[in-house]
Amino acid sequence: MREGLPPAPLPPGSTIGMLGSGQLGRMLAMAAARLGMKTHVYCEASGPAFDVATRTSKGGFDDLAALAEFAASVDVVTYEFENVAVDTARHLARFVPVRPNARALEVAQDRLLEKRFIADLGIPVAPFRAVDGESNVRAALSEFAAPAILKTRRFGYDGKGQVGLAPGDDPCLAWKRIGARPAIIEKRMAFESEISALAVRGVDGELAFYDCPINTHEAGILRRSVVPSGLPDDVLARARAIAAAIAGALDYVGVLAVEMFDLGGDLAPGQRLMVNEIAPRVHNSGHWSLDACTISQFENHMRAVAGWPLGCTRRHSDAEMVNLIGADAHEWERLAADRGAVLHLYGKREARAGRKMGHLTRLCLRTSA
Amino acid sequence: MREGLPPAPLPPGSTIGMLGSGQLGRMLAMAAARLGMKTHVYCEASGPAFDVATRTSKGGFDDLAALAEFAASVDVVTYEFENVAVDTARHLARFVPVRPNARALEVAQDRLLEKRFIADLGIPVAPFRAVDGESNVRAALSEFAAPAILKTRRFGYDGKGQVGLAPGDDPCLAWKRIGARPAIIEKRMAFESEISALAVRGVDGELAFYDCPINTHEAGILRRSVVPSGLPDDVLARARAIAAAIAGALDYVGVLAVEMFDLGGDLAPGQRLMVNEIAPRVHNSGHWSLDACTISQFENHMRAVAGWPLGCTRRHSDAEMVNLIGADAHEWERLAADRGAVLHLYGKREARAGRKMGHLTRLCLRTSA
Repeated sequence: MREGLPPAPLPPGSTIGMLGSGQLGRMLAMAAARLGMKTHVYCEASGPAFDVATRTSKGGFDDLAALAEFAASVDVVTYEFENVAVDTARHLARFVPVRPNARALEVAQDRLLEKRFIADLGIPVAPFRAVDGESNVRAALSEFAAPAILKTRRFGYDGKGQVGLAPGDDPCLAWKRIGARPAIIEKRMAFESEISALAVRGVDGELAFYDCPINTHEAGILRRSVVPSGLPDDVLARARAIAAAIAGALDYVGVLAVEMFDLGGDLAPGQRLMVNEIAPRVHNSGHWSLDACTISQFENHMRAVAGWPLGCTRRHSDAEMVNLIGADAHEWERLAADRGAVLHLYGKREARAGRKMGHLTRLCLRTSA
Repeated sequence: MREGLPPAPLPPGSTIGMLGSGQLGRMLAMAAARLGMKTHVYCEASGPAFDVATRTSKGGFDDLAALAEFAASVDVVTYEFENVAVDTARHLARFVPVRPNARALEVAQDRLLEKRFIADLGIPVAPFRAVDGESNVRAALSEFAAPAILKTRRFGYDGKGQVGLAPGDDPCLAWKRIGARPAIIEKRMAFESEISALAVRGVDGELAFYDCPINTHEAGILRRSVVPSGLPDDVLARARAIAAAIAGALDYVGVLAVEMFDLGGDLAPGQRLMVNEIAPRVHNSGHWSLDACTISQFENHMRAVAGWPLGCTRRHSDAEMVNLIGADAHEWERLAADRGAVLHLYGKREARAGRKMGHLTRLCLRTSA
């Protein structure tokens, strides 16, 4: 794909296929509509994206015939969650471009592959070992002292599929708690803060970045993202360079989020950031871009996927994004009356515990006008 | 409705019914989705709003049974064009709240009623006379010297249904050119500029305003809107007061646009503005609010219609909105590459002459950051 001319941009009126029906898909579909594009959302079950899609299909991600039919109805396929089976993406790619590509999915959805891939690029990651049995977890843990974290290789998100190991904890019990599945154990790093680099890469390799937010998690779920992060420019430049290296190595198209730890100001800029994980999609920590930037992460993902030039990522206001999780959404009436907040609700019916129901963005003009 | 407590706000997950399927409906539907609302679009034919609506129905605006069925499926009804028949709105209002109300439609869609209504509020309008026959048009014209404009009372928009009368023109011929239909003749005013006041009024009478843009028309169609207008504060305050008086007199709910002429700085602020016409809906001259304000006119219309508190109308950037009309849309590839422009395309297939295909907003941060 990188040989010769880049593919021509899809004209307005084209249809972007999307795998997944969650809130990211909902915001992506609306961004596509702004560009005059249609969307066709394919998912096993209906969800927030179905409400705003031009067309929807319910089908299994292993239903090859239904997927082929879906592929025939669209001009390009993207996805809004990283656990799309690699085989599903490869099957679709026989009929239609899939952006980001299947390789990005493969790397992002397996923590072992992901760590190795990033480390092979010379980018720091926490010390880790593969774990596939009880004896192995004990041996791996003995190689570096607890505290450590045991994480399933696959299907972990929002803190699911992982468990912490304090000194003295029984590693075998921990392994059973994550389902006795293939896993990695990694050293728990003492970090000062968590940030994310949000890059977008076009079909021609053009790169753009959003400001790196500083992120706060609660119970393994993102609670808050703030821009600017307050980190020094050289550290932020390093964060962008890391995201660019990963995006380039994957021949990536679309928005790529790279979650990082800032280990602290005592280290050199080149040593200070350590990659935690990547997400081959628009990212919760970039939702403020909808309200604080000229062009949001959602539109820029769709621009990249459609082969369009990237839009301006400039931020016009300082911003704080706060997730509304579970029962937080019951506060909608109070939040709707808060003139300092831009409220986004995802149209989910049940406010189950731990479920992302919406978010709000507080804007602060950087200067008095 | 204004007695006692205002109606309770509709909870997220409610369905907002919308009459009309054009680009205004498309942008309104997306604004509703952001608030976690569903939309049900009802129109005689499919259009840009169908692509992003949760549900769509094709039906006639005089099909009382289909309208009743539509009403039963929604929690409130609004509309995106002002030529919804008053009888249609009254029929729907038997089942479900219609916002803005039928009275606003009635006034806005008949130029004679509209002029009288505004003049009765003590707000300046151009001198006008009702015209309903050849003798009448000649008599009316004799009352004030040409130049004048002959306009059909109903179904005029984007310069349609009107014809100018220069000194010496045959008024009867002009009347035939507009279809020999009930009309008004009004004096063509020498104005310095055209502006619009964009007000939004909540169910409890709460009022908010967007900055008044200064508007340029070409061939009767809006081409460009710019904020700030450069007009003095007292003139802008007068524009807001005019819009507030009209909205209050109509017990209006939603965004109301009031197009005005600025007759020039030689006049006192109270004399300087003259109302041209009102639009009981979001307005093309407010499209820049999507990109330049905390909360757009579309979201604020939906907030008002849903009985929510109004959102913050603050403008974070100076802005210029340019309509893409007809063949302008063929330039999409060049416009997509223009990083200074935020591009909005409406998903219309054919770029017919005079058809609004999209718009773009150029933002200019008011201060260097």
